[in-house]
Amino acid sequence: MNTLKVKMLESSAADFSAQLEQLLAWESVSNDNVQAAVVEIIASVRHRGDAALLDYTACFDRYSVSSMEALKVSSERVATALAGIGEERRTALELAAERVKSYHEHQRQESWQYQESDGTILGQKVTPLDRVGLYVPGGKASYPSSVLMNAIPAKVAGVREIVMVVPSPEGELSDMVLAAAAVAGVDTIYTIGGAQAVAALAYGTETVPKVDKIVGPGNIYVATAKRQVFGQVGLDMIAGPSEILVICDGGTDPDWIAMDLFSQAEHDEDAQAILLSDDADFLVAVRDSMRALLPTMERAEIIRASVEARCALILVDDLQEAAEIANVIAPEHLELSVAEPELLLKEIRHAGAIFMGRYTAEALGDYCAGPNHVLPTSGTARFSSPLGVYDFQKRSSLIQCSAAGASVLGKTAAVLARGESLTAHARSAEYRVKD
Amino acid sequence: MNTLKVKMLESSAADFSAQLEQLLAWESVSNDNVQAAVVEIIASVRHRGDAALLDYTACFDRYSVSSMEALKVSSERVATALAGIGEERRTALELAAERVKSYHEHQRQESWQYQESDGTILGQKVTPLDRVGLYVPGGKASYPSSVLMNAIPAKVAGVREIVMVVPSPEGELSDMVLAAAAVAGVDTIYTIGGAQAVAALAYGTETVPKVDKIVGPGNIYVATAKRQVFGQVGLDMIAGPSEILVICDGGTDPDWIAMDLFSQAEHDEDAQAILLSDDADFLVAVRDSMRALLPTMERAEIIRASVEARCALILVDDLQEAAEIANVIAPEHLELSVAEPELLLKEIRHAGAIFMGRYTAEALGDYCAGPNHVLPTSGTARFSSPLGVYDFQKRSSLIQCSAAGASVLGKTAAVLARGESLTAHARSAEYRVKD
Repeated sequence: MNTLKVKMLESSAADFSAQLEQLLAWESVSNDNVQAAVVEIIASVRHRGDAALLDYTACFDRYSVSSMEALKVSSERVATALAGIGEERRTALELAAERVKSYHEHQRQESWQYQESDGTILGQKVTPLDRVGLYVPGGKASYPSSVLMNAIPAKVAGVREIVMVVPSPEGELSDMVLAAAAVAGVDTIYTIGGAQAVAALAYGTETVPKVDKIVGPGNIYVATAKRQVFGQVGLDMIAGPSEILVICDGGTDPDWIAMDLFSQAEHDEDAQAILLSDDADFLVAVRDSMRALLPTMERAEIIRASVEARCALILVDDLQEAAEIANVIAPEHLELSVAEPELLLKEIRHAGAIFMGRYTAEALGDYCAGPNHVLPTSGTARFSSPLGVYDFQKRSSLIQCSAAGASVLGKTAAVLARGESLTAHARSAEYRVKD
Repeated sequence: MNTLKVKMLESSAADFSAQLEQLLAWESVSNDNVQAAVVEIIASVRHRGDAALLDYTACFDRYSVSSMEALKVSSERVATALAGIGEERRTALELAAERVKSYHEHQRQESWQYQESDGTILGQKVTPLDRVGLYVPGGKASYPSSVLMNAIPAKVAGVREIVMVVPSPEGELSDMVLAAAAVAGVDTIYTIGGAQAVAALAYGTETVPKVDKIVGPGNIYVATAKRQVFGQVGLDMIAGPSEILVICDGGTDPDWIAMDLFSQAEHDEDAQAILLSDDADFLVAVRDSMRALLPTMERAEIIRASVEARCALILVDDLQEAAEIANVIAPEHLELSVAEPELLLKEIRHAGAIFMGRYTAEALGDYCAGPNHVLPTSGTARFSSPLGVYDFQKRSSLIQCSAAGASVLGKTAAVLARGESLTAHARSAEYRVKD
C-alpha cells in the first residue's frame, strides 16, 4: 500500500491565507441535464399524480406495482422490522432516540406577549407546522440515525403528521430504517424516492398528502428538486460534504485524533478533516498514526481519497490563533481536544456543533449524545444553525391595540405613511385616531 | 369613472374550493433574460470587483463617478439628511424605531446548557452574525420604514456591522431613507444597487466588505441575484406580493374595512385583499364604501387594478369557518375585526401577523406598533415566520462528555455506527470506552 499523503501546513507561511482558501474551496456542481430531468419529473407528478409516481418508481427503482397501496408501508411491516433487528440494535436506537428527544425538548419555543400601559397587547404566537415530509435515501446510503435526527425535533415541536419517503430499489427496504421510523414516531411511509417523491410531498397527489416542509438528505436529483419546490414548501439546508475541524493542544492520544479525522473522511471522498495544533511534534505523531491505522480501516479507499484531496494538519502559533482560523472556516463539526475547552469556547463564534474536551468524540454527536447531527456545512455556520425544534415551529406576530393605543400610534403611522406616499395606509390609521 | 368591480363569493358554493384556489393562484415569473444578465453581473463583480461596480452604476443608475469613495455615503451626509427632514418626521421615525426595538428585544435568544448526572454537559451557544448586508430599493419604491424593520432586529441581535446598499439613480438619494438608516444605527452605506450590489455583498470587493447574510426587498434583478448567492450568504425570504385577509363580524364601520383593504391594494397591482364575513349585508356595505372611497384615493389606479384582479368579499357560514379558510390561505396579514378576537385567535394556526380587534389597523403594524413588517407571503406562513432577531442569531450545539459519559455513550454510538458500516466512527467512539 502506498504511504498516505497528508498535507502539512503552517499558519506562519506568507501565503497561508491563500492556501487555506484553496483547501476549503468547494462548489456544488449544478448539472443542466439533472436540472432538465427534474423539471420534467416535477411537472409530470403535478399533472399525473399517483400514475406518475408508479411509472417513475418502476423506471428508476426497478419496482413495478399496480397501485399506490403497494407503495405504502403497513404498520405491520414496520412492527416486524422493529422486532427483527435484534435486542442490541433496538436498545441502541431507543437509547439514542430518548437522548435526542430529551435534548431537543430544551429547544421548544413558547408563545409570549406583553401589555403596554394603555392596554395595547403585543407578542408572538408560536405554532408547529401541520405536516412535514422526511426524505430518507435508500440503498447503501440509508442511515437510521438520520431518521431519528430529522423526525424527533418535528415530533417535539408538535407536528401533527410526519410523512416519510424512502425509495426501495427492487423492492428492498432497510429494517433498521423502518425500525428507526417506528422509534421516532413517523406517521406514514411511502416507498418512493428521487425527484418524484419530492414533487409528491410538495404538491400532493391523490394518495400522498401535501406537506409544509421537506427535510432530509438526498442525492443530486433530490437536492435539485428540493431547490425547485422551495417557496411551495419550506426546506432544511441543502448540505455540502461533511467536515470536521479539530483543535488539539497535543495532549490527546494521536491515535484518537487520527481516528476522529478518519471518522469524517470515511463519509465520502469530498469530506474534509483538518487538524490545528501548536505542537509540531504532535502533528507528525498524528500523521504517523493515520498512516499506521489506514490499512486497518474497512473504508480505507474512501478515507485515502478524502485525506489526500482535502485533509490538512496545520501548525499554528497558539490556541488563540487556532480559534481565529476556526472562525474563518466556520466548520460543521469542531472538536476542542484541549485541557481547558471552556476557555477556548469563549473565542469561538462560528461552528455547527462544538465537541469539548478529549473524551468528546464527534462520533458520539452523530448518534446519541442528544444534539442534532444535521448541521450547517461549507462555512454556512456563519449564518445558520443545527436542525432543531425551531425549524418545525413558526411564529405569528400579535398586535391588539386598545382604542387609546390606536389613537396614539395612528398619528405616527400616518406621518410615516404619507412620507412614503401611501395615503390609504395613512387614512386607515387616521380612522382610528380620536381628536 | 367606471364602477369598481368587486368579486362577491360565497363559501357555500359547490365550487368554492376551486374559486379560492384560483383567487390565490400566483407564481413568480422567472425570466431567462434576467437570469442570464444576473449570472454575468455576479461573475463580473467577483472577477473585477470595484471596477465592475463603477461600470454598472454608470450604466444602470446613470451615475458616473471615478472611485468607490464617491459611492460611499459620508456620516456628514447622513447627519444632514436627519437634520433636514423636519421635526415631525424625525420624531415619527424615532418613535417607530424605539417601539420596534423594544418589541424585538423580547425575541433575543440566550445560550443554554444543562449538566447530566455523570457530568456530561449539553447545550447551545447562541451568537449574532458578524456582518449583515441590507438592500434598500432606490427611487420611488424607497421605504424608510423598511430600513428600520430590517436593521433594528440585526442591531438587537448584536450584529457588529450593517452594510446598507441603496442605488442612487442619477445621484439622487432619499433623505428619509438616510435618516432612517441613522436612526436604526446602520454602520456603512454604499450607493450601489441591483444584482451588482448583491454580488458585492456576497463576495466582497476591494471596498465593499463581504457579509454573512443579505436582507431587504428588491426588484426582479435583486431577487434573482439573491437566489443565486444563497449558500454563499444567508438570505431572508424572497417575498411575493403583499396580502391581507380581514375577518369581520359586521360590527366594524364599513369605511374602516374598505380602507384597510385599500391600504393593501395600493401597494401594487398584484397585491391581494380579501374580506370574510358571516354578514351578507355588511359585505355589500363594504363594497359600497369601496366604490365611494375609490375616487378620493391618490393611488386610485393601482387600487382599482389590484381590487378588480385579486380582491374578493366572501360570505361565510360563521366565524369558525372563516378561521378555517384563514388557515388554508395562511395570509401575510390577518385582521380579526370582531368583538372577541381572543376567542377567534385560538382557531388560527397560520398567519404572518395577526391584528386583533376593530382598532388594530394593519397600517399600524407596517410602521410603528413594534412587530416587524417583513412577513411571509403567498401562503408561506404555513412554515415561516416574521423577520426577527432570531434571523440574525445562530446556534452552535455544545457537547462536553465526562469520561464516564463518553464510556456509556461510546457503546451505543458504536452499535449504531457499525449498523451503518461506519467503522471509523465506531472505533473513534470505542477509544473512549472504559472496560
